[in-house]
Amino acid sequence: MSRGVKLAIVGATGAVGQEMMQILEERNLPLEELICLAAPSEVGTKLSFKGETIIVQSADEKVFKAADIALFAVETDISNKLAPLAQKNNCLVIDNSNAFRLAEGVPLVVPEVNARDIKDHKGIIASPNCSTIIMVVAINPIYEKYGLKRVIVSTYQAVSGAGVAGIEELDTHIKTYQAGQKPIPKTFQHPISFNVIPHIDVFVEDDYTKEEMKMVYEARKIMHAPELRISATAVRVPVYRSHSEAITLDLESPATVAEVKELLANAPGIIVQDDITNNIYPMPLYASNTDEVYVGRIRTDISGDNSIALWVAADQIRKGAATNTIQIAEEVIAKNLF
Amino acid sequence: MSRGVKLAIVGATGAVGQEMMQILEERNLPLEELICLAAPSEVGTKLSFKGETIIVQSADEKVFKAADIALFAVETDISNKLAPLAQKNNCLVIDNSNAFRLAEGVPLVVPEVNARDIKDHKGIIASPNCSTIIMVVAINPIYEKYGLKRVIVSTYQAVSGAGVAGIEELDTHIKTYQAGQKPIPKTFQHPISFNVIPHIDVFVEDDYTKEEMKMVYEARKIMHAPELRISATAVRVPVYRSHSEAITLDLESPATVAEVKELLANAPGIIVQDDITNNIYPMPLYASNTDEVYVGRIRTDISGDNSIALWVAADQIRKGAATNTIQIAEEVIAKNLF
Repeated sequence: MSRGVKLAIVGATGAVGQEMMQILEERNLPLEELICLAAPSEVGTKLSFKGETIIVQSADEKVFKAADIALFAVETDISNKLAPLAQKNNCLVIDNSNAFRLAEGVPLVVPEVNARDIKDHKGIIASPNCSTIIMVVAINPIYEKYGLKRVIVSTYQAVSGAGVAGIEELDTHIKTYQAGQKPIPKTFQHPISFNVIPHIDVFVEDDYTKEEMKMVYEARKIMHAPELRISATAVRVPVYRSHSEAITLDLESPATVAEVKELLANAPGIIVQDDITNNIYPMPLYASNTDEVYVGRIRTDISGDNSIALWVAADQIRKGAATNTIQIAEEVIAKNLF
Repeated sequence: MSRGVKLAIVGATGAVGQEMMQILEERNLPLEELICLAAPSEVGTKLSFKGETIIVQSADEKVFKAADIALFAVETDISNKLAPLAQKNNCLVIDNSNAFRLAEGVPLVVPEVNARDIKDHKGIIASPNCSTIIMVVAINPIYEKYGLKRVIVSTYQAVSGAGVAGIEELDTHIKTYQAGQKPIPKTFQHPISFNVIPHIDVFVEDDYTKEEMKMVYEARKIMHAPELRISATAVRVPVYRSHSEAITLDLESPATVAEVKELLANAPGIIVQDDITNNIYPMPLYASNTDEVYVGRIRTDISGDNSIALWVAADQIRKGAATNTIQIAEEVIAKNLF
């Protein structure tokens, strides 16, 4: 732990990159240097970190040679292009994009679930999709203790899942609506003001969206449950920040609601918010700007045998992206795996 | 059909009552007279109907004696008080509230599903809860043709489900938020601007809400499926009008997606909106101010055996309340059952 780390952020000026810098200020990673990288158009931008100014540089071979670990907070195509360059120069990549998540030999990690997979990396570790992270933190303790036959999830996803453009579009659409005019969709497929849209990312196999299938394939890999049956409906809602999920679980072996509540209350990364007599349950409004996954409305699913229903909310920019990536970096550093 | 009907609306000045008057203007019921009734404080209010002025009266024995049918669009306690008075005076009650829905001898009717039950009335017919109506229109054709083992539903419910107060609260909360201040909840339990709230109506048995259990008990009664296993998660979203539902169905006997699409396309009251290559699927924004239930995202539920996933949206003030009540009245009149 005495080894100082030279840490780079690729995409430091973006929404997730900026969030990473804020989280790094809050936590105690043994940083020797923080290197901020971004697209050529952003090079020279001054960013503030712990009272000092960091000048944004271009992501090139020389920079990766100088860095120990690079947190990638960029689009898939940029990760595809730059991650191999970092890898070649012995800079460990922890990637937030979809580029390597399902690739053979790339650990896909949510530290609360499978930190043990980190040691198998070959220069790239992937952080999962936000909706997946939130779901697996909540359901993995139940999977490990009781087994799972089936997972059904409906999501309520914030517009910031589509980045700053998503936030701006919700703002614009609401103001356009208030002015009595018709919102024009750009980032989303339809107006997002006072609407919900059952369509996130593109449609892929079996008429599911890519967002929905990410939850299936990524959860199976993270939880080491290649046969786990999962189906998702991913829906965009007019919320700025934090995703929510209604989850139904069919368990292999029986569990009471009290047992599940106790299990989750003691599980890492989870805060159980389940006091219905006081109207306490997870909500995006209160999950925002925190690092935990909130679980509530824990009850027997009365349509199933051995089934449990949950309601989950978490900040998808923090735990769903930036925080998870930094938690992976912390594990890597603590175990000297870079 | 030549018999002219004296039709009363109890609660004519409220949101659902006003919607009923508008729907009556659009449709061709053989009305001899429309009688508008409301609370004492509203008596004397002038309402417009087909170019004429109707003066709001008090709901008393004399009025019910003069009316053939009364559409009740009031709170449960008012229905409990006034419906027996109408019934006693041979005025058929079609009630929108929760007062009589599960009562023995009271048909609970969604005409597309169980119009045949109307004939068994003893002076009161109930119209179901909005979320229930929307769900049963969509799933009953599948139940009748393939059988259903299990129904899992997550809702995305508009604020107008809480009446005009709900609409005003969303408005106020958004403006408060835009002004940089903290919204104060009155109608809802928490701020509804840029938030979702997994709590509608009060908590009842097994930690489910009353809204959720209505969907269970009412659907069983309407569909004549007393053993049907249903579980719901009812969630308020910042949408003005029209509810959406993500529904998973486990079928008794196998059906292909193509068969289900064809079945629903030919089912009464349903419009299939399912053209994902053109981003067409049901959404509350487009369902509003129409009378149909829109069904899309029809696909195999990949977590189940013989399972189908659906996404449904409909205007809960129209099909979920006012339109359904008027459709019941139309059946009653057509079959001379009053």
